[in-house]
Amino acid sequence: MMTKRVREILGYYDSENPGVRTNLARFLNHGRLAGTGRLVILPVDQGFEHGPARSFAVNPPAYNPHYHFELARDAGCNGYAAPLGFLEAGAAEYPGELPLILKLNNHDVLLDERDPMPAVTGSVKDALRLGCAAVGFTIYPGSTARQQMYQQLQEIAAEAKEHGLAVVVWSYPRGSALSKEGETALDVVAYAAQIAAQLGANIVKVKLPSAHLEQPEARKVYETARVALEPLSARVAHVMQSCFDGRRILIFSGGAKEEDKALLDEVKAIRAGGGYGSIIGRNSFQRPKPDAITLLSRIMEIYAS
Amino acid sequence: MMTKRVREILGYYDSENPGVRTNLARFLNHGRLAGTGRLVILPVDQGFEHGPARSFAVNPPAYNPHYHFELARDAGCNGYAAPLGFLEAGAAEYPGELPLILKLNNHDVLLDERDPMPAVTGSVKDALRLGCAAVGFTIYPGSTARQQMYQQLQEIAAEAKEHGLAVVVWSYPRGSALSKEGETALDVVAYAAQIAAQLGANIVKVKLPSAHLEQPEARKVYETARVALEPLSARVAHVMQSCFDGRRILIFSGGAKEEDKALLDEVKAIRAGGGYGSIIGRNSFQRPKPDAITLLSRIMEIYAS
Amino acid sequence: MMTKRVREILGYYDSENPGVRTNLARFLNHGRLAGTGRLVILPVDQGFEHGPARSFAVNPPAYNPHYHFELARDAGCNGYAAPLGFLEAGAAEYPGELPLILKLNNHDVLLDERDPMPAVTGSVKDALRLGCAAVGFTIYPGSTARQQMYQQLQEIAAEAKEHGLAVVVWSYPRGSALSKEGETALDVVAYAAQIAAQLGANIVKVKLPSAHLEQPEARKVYETARVALEPLSARVAHVMQSCFDGRRILIFSGGAKEEDKALLDEVKAIRAGGGYGSIIGRNSFQRPKPDAITLLSRIMEIYAS
Amino acid sequence: MMTKRVREILGYYDSENPGVRTNLARFLNHGRLAGTGRLVILPVDQGFEHGPARSFAVNPPAYNPHYHFELARDAGCNGYAAPLGFLEAGAAEYPGELPLILKLNNHDVLLDERDPMPAVTGSVKDALRLGCAAVGFTIYPGSTARQQMYQQLQEIAAEAKEHGLAVVVWSYPRGSALSKEGETALDVVAYAAQIAAQLGANIVKVKLPSAHLEQPEARKVYETARVALEPLSARVAHVMQSCFDGRRILIFSGGAKEEDKALLDEVKAIRAGGGYGSIIGRNSFQRPKPDAITLLSRIMEIYAS
Amino acid sequence: MMTKRVREILGYYDSENPGVRTNLARFLNHGRLAGTGRLVILPVDQGFEHGPARSFAVNPPAYNPHYHFELARDAGCNGYAAPLGFLEAGAAEYPGELPLILKLNNHDVLLDERDPMPAVTGSVKDALRLGCAAVGFTIYPGSTARQQMYQQLQEIAAEAKEHGLAVVVWSYPRGSALSKEGETALDVVAYAAQIAAQLGANIVKVKLPSAHLEQPEARKVYETARVALEPLSARVAHVMQSCFDGRRILIFSGGAKEEDKALLDEVKAIRAGGGYGSIIGRNSFQRPKPDAITLLSRIMEIYAS
Repeated sequence: MMTKRVREILGYYDSENPGVRTNLARFLNHGRLAGTGRLVILPVDQGFEHGPARSFAVNPPAYNPHYHFELARDAGCNGYAAPLGFLEAGAAEYPGELPLILKLNNHDVLLDERDPMPAVTGSVKDALRLGCAAVGFTIYPGSTARQQMYQQLQEIAAEAKEHGLAVVVWSYPRGSALSKEGETALDVVAYAAQIAAQLGANIVKVKLPSAHLEQPEARKVYETARVALEPLSARVAHVMQSCFDGRRILIFSGGAKEEDKALLDEVKAIRAGGGYGSIIGRNSFQRPKPDAITLLSRIMEIYAS
Repeated sequence: MMTKRVREILGYYDSENPGVRTNLARFLNHGRLAGTGRLVILPVDQGFEHGPARSFAVNPPAYNPHYHFELARDAGCNGYAAPLGFLEAGAAEYPGELPLILKLNNHDVLLDERDPMPAVTGSVKDALRLGCAAVGFTIYPGSTARQQMYQQLQEIAAEAKEHGLAVVVWSYPRGSALSKEGETALDVVAYAAQIAAQLGANIVKVKLPSAHLEQPEARKVYETARVALEPLSARVAHVMQSCFDGRRILIFSGGAKEEDKALLDEVKAIRAGGGYGSIIGRNSFQRPKPDAITLLSRIMEIYAS
Repeated sequence: MMTKRVREILGYYDSENPGVRTNLARFLNHGRLAGTGRLVILPVDQGFEHGPARSFAVNPPAYNPHYHFELARDAGCNGYAAPLGFLEAGAAEYPGELPLILKLNNHDVLLDERDPMPAVTGSVKDALRLGCAAVGFTIYPGSTARQQMYQQLQEIAAEAKEHGLAVVVWSYPRGSALSKEGETALDVVAYAAQIAAQLGANIVKVKLPSAHLEQPEARKVYETARVALEPLSARVAHVMQSCFDGRRILIFSGGAKEEDKALLDEVKAIRAGGGYGSIIGRNSFQRPKPDAITLLSRIMEIYAS
Repeated sequence: MMTKRVREILGYYDSENPGVRTNLARFLNHGRLAGTGRLVILPVDQGFEHGPARSFAVNPPAYNPHYHFELARDAGCNGYAAPLGFLEAGAAEYPGELPLILKLNNHDVLLDERDPMPAVTGSVKDALRLGCAAVGFTIYPGSTARQQMYQQLQEIAAEAKEHGLAVVVWSYPRGSALSKEGETALDVVAYAAQIAAQLGANIVKVKLPSAHLEQPEARKVYETARVALEPLSARVAHVMQSCFDGRRILIFSGGAKEEDKALLDEVKAIRAGGGYGSIIGRNSFQRPKPDAITLLSRIMEIYAS
Repeated sequence: MMTKRVREILGYYDSENPGVRTNLARFLNHGRLAGTGRLVILPVDQGFEHGPARSFAVNPPAYNPHYHFELARDAGCNGYAAPLGFLEAGAAEYPGELPLILKLNNHDVLLDERDPMPAVTGSVKDALRLGCAAVGFTIYPGSTARQQMYQQLQEIAAEAKEHGLAVVVWSYPRGSALSKEGETALDVVAYAAQIAAQLGANIVKVKLPSAHLEQPEARKVYETARVALEPLSARVAHVMQSCFDGRRILIFSGGAKEEDKALLDEVKAIRAGGGYGSIIGRNSFQRPKPDAITLLSRIMEIYAS
């Protein structure tokens, strides 16, 4: 039976067909956070994005693609996201065990450009034959190649929705227009969330914003309008606002492995700021499975509380 | 977590892509019989097949398409099957609440031919945009128009599977080649199950067979090979055998409204004969909802025992 | 501003995209009945269906295609429906003056078969380039050619909805399976409404039902379930019920020119039975325009009251 | 009933099919200026173009996509224009409440090139399924990337018109060929209006021109021919002239938030110069809704007078 | 290493692309007869063609689709042919264990017409995704529906070869033009082999011919030219001659279960007449597996000698 909160969230997607809404409901009604309107998703694209040893050497069982299906399932995540190969290597063995997201573009760092452009590495048809509930796509606002990414996303999102799949967008500002610090600046992250939502994303993923402000024109507005920069929960709330006033599912990533205490504090801030949840990659699969499940449980407890 | 029995059943579908297996798993893991390897499905195509008053006048709330979504959900059925209009009238309001089957062909009796040919009334794309887990298709072995149905099914099944949807086939012998009694004759029903499975059906639905034998050549074999005609559970077992030795999900329909006692005895025979379950239409929606839920609960208890 | 009733009706179409809902809203919010949830539509396909003289000789200005655009507009109808030629001959001159329905199939009586099969005479693309809000399609349940019509409708409806157009279905039982009296029998009309709705029609049009019951199996049910056959409003209510319990817009046609008194009494019965409105063709354009407007005004007054 | 002026304007579009004319009529016959031949349109693409905080922080309710549908509707605007995400987030809830324009390309300023190239972020199919009356497209004459934009527009406009949608072009000179002052120079704005009209735009939007003249060759002609540079209404009249002598709907944008007095004076000048109207974005949604409605009312009063 | 005989046979197919030749080589180089230029193939389509009990009741393990993969593999057959469902139910479990033939059309006898027309029940795409080496197709020369079969075969064969699959044609004269005895008449069987070869079959399968001559015009020629009617090996040689003088692989079926002695004598005659081999269905799977393997071994010994 659907909870009031899940029904409310699905109501934000009234323009989508029942297929998209069904798949959004699958994420919202799966795992330990089922029905709460909160989500914790396991993403494992680092093997492609950063290379296998940087991703898995610290916890060698994670080299095995089955490991991640089981980690996501056993931890009670709402979904699992990965590139084509990882999903092909397990979708048949774990059919319907949790909602899957096929990441349709990926970028490696054997050549790491200042203005990166990911390659399209899968298709909507792949997502359908693998039984996925959604497709995922990364855009890099701030890159000189961003138009091409936006246009690829426009075509993929239209095809995905027509076939009833939800669309998840990783919106990660990067590129020659931005300082390193600027990639997680509050104004830039908020802008990145807005762009993803305007491009038709059903679920948006951004990095947690810092209190830095990157763009001079934006800085003026933030100061004039007295947009709160502290604490973190206020920044989360601002990014939520920037993502259609909370009418699009917005989740935050924790980035590289860090102290659990810091991570859990971030989760508390996301919850306090009204965020929908977290996407926890390296912080979960780069430690032994029991530890990862313990950490994910603590995160889910915070969201469920 | 997937039960051993569900995993075993999914193993029968190793040639299907993970999408099809995911959707089969959705049926097997939903509702009160989740994980048991048994299924009870609610089909409501009688409004089209027999007309609205013959279908719903005895229980007027059933005129409302929402009624059936709620009946199937509240009774804990594994799935709900209906034609395009009924699904369009509720799929957006009950997204992901239970696995749906879009029946892609239908036949009305304003003109009731000796050799009936249903009309194709929906498409694989409709099933995808409505968030269905499967498409359904009826064939009438014994009708002079059967080749056309088989070929329509061949094309629809290929397209459905390519998009990760499961294929459910209603295999109902009818037509000028068969006597009325022959439509449910053991040899004919077993043959109909075989044909559906050979056509690539993932789930096969047939009527419960009588002890009658229709075809002279078949009768000889049944006598020579001493195929048991009694009790009903033996006939169920024979039809299971004829459906790839139980390696395809085979469910039985109860037909028109009958005494509950008789219906429950049939269910016991299906269970004893190793059948996968029942599709219960008129016997459930042609009585008040509480009574229907009571009956369906008793049926599920038998299967779960 | 949308009335509560219009919002309620549009809610029945939650599975449709915003384009279809926009065009349904156009009908519901246009003309003298705007906002009431009732509709009076002018259809003029009789020139094709019955021939020009039988249609227009009694009121010669009606030979002119502009006449009907103006009649529908000036009378405050919710919409105007006609075949390709009539719309092409006026759509450019009356752009956006009222919602148009392009009738995509038509049948002439130069050859009047027992089992008629209309020809497809226009396309969804025609409807779009002519600025229509909907396409119309006629089916003849009871005709041996009905499967072909259902399948044509299935394809046309899918294409129309994908392009944001609403789908109006004329469901007129005819053919060798039915007696002349049976074409308007209560059981048959209710069945025809159900079939159109199951095929995905957004708006269904049927003839007013008589108290006759045509099919023996249906007659039994009507008697057992004590479905009221009198007065006319009870029959209207039964057909509404049969059309997804009123969750699809269902309108009634008045047929050939008759006494105004009788016609207005019929309208009162439609209103009392909860019907959505009327489609008034020959009764309006086969009399002088001022008289037609007077009659249509009186009809609209009844619906608005 | 269509006014003489609207009929006259529609007459300028005799080469377009009735669908395009119907949708143009929808804009001309909607809202407080219905029938006057004048238009005030609400555009909200700044969330994408300038970022959310710069757009909405000053009036936080404007973060919510529903806000703009209601502002445009309640103020009696002729239409509302926005990118895909904003329309998807409301089209289903406000079906048919006012004519919508889907902006099919957008540009963000996380990277702000000297020669900007917007990304295509939506499609004609999106516009149809969302129930839009028009598509919008931005070109930057003066950018080295302009040919690509013109060619994208050519294809999109052809497809849109074939499907009965009107085409609105934002023609904003920008790029390495122009000085900052030159972007609003009279000769440049007039040229930009001409280019948009030549590319087949049905509605053209430009910025209000200054009295500056950018291009030397043009300056000579303006001086020789004594084209009036003052007052503003004369410049408006010249741009109208340059836009097919007023035979294309041409509206002007007000740019960033400014003093109401100055804005209203501009509107008076547009009216005096024969302009069709205004597109008022930031000046309306960057203030509290009641104030915005007051301002828009005063603007509409000027146009209606 | 390829034998000289296999190389010679493959040389007959020089016009086929390397893909088709590769798949023909797979049959010729697989199993106990690998390299001999002889073939014994297991076909199991009787479940569809005659019904499950008539096919499998005498040896119940044969109801299980896996049984046949294992029988064909363990007996050392050159290939295994079956309809879609049987291959789907095992292709994933026995990948590459022996060359597979997907039978693309099938006929059931729930309705057994005088002029039968099989239904197309699979596609070239199905054969590719199931890893088959060939497609199979049945034609009934002598049936009034034969043109339709020939045309279906033409399209399927072209598509199959384009994708590198070999084409196997079952050419079984049947229909209102032939007496029962005529179906296996020497002139008719020879003619059927010729038709299949002319239609582009790579492998032709016919029934063993009797000494009967069916067609008066043919009989005259047979008598004039003194074509030998006895012994059986002479008839085999004549059919080989009629099948492009042995330049197409031609194999013979044994029909219903008969005495082993008779069957082995037939095999000897096929060998003596220069035939390529046998297709042994019911005679193998309608007895216990060890017995079947014994029989198939004796047959292969004859061919290998």
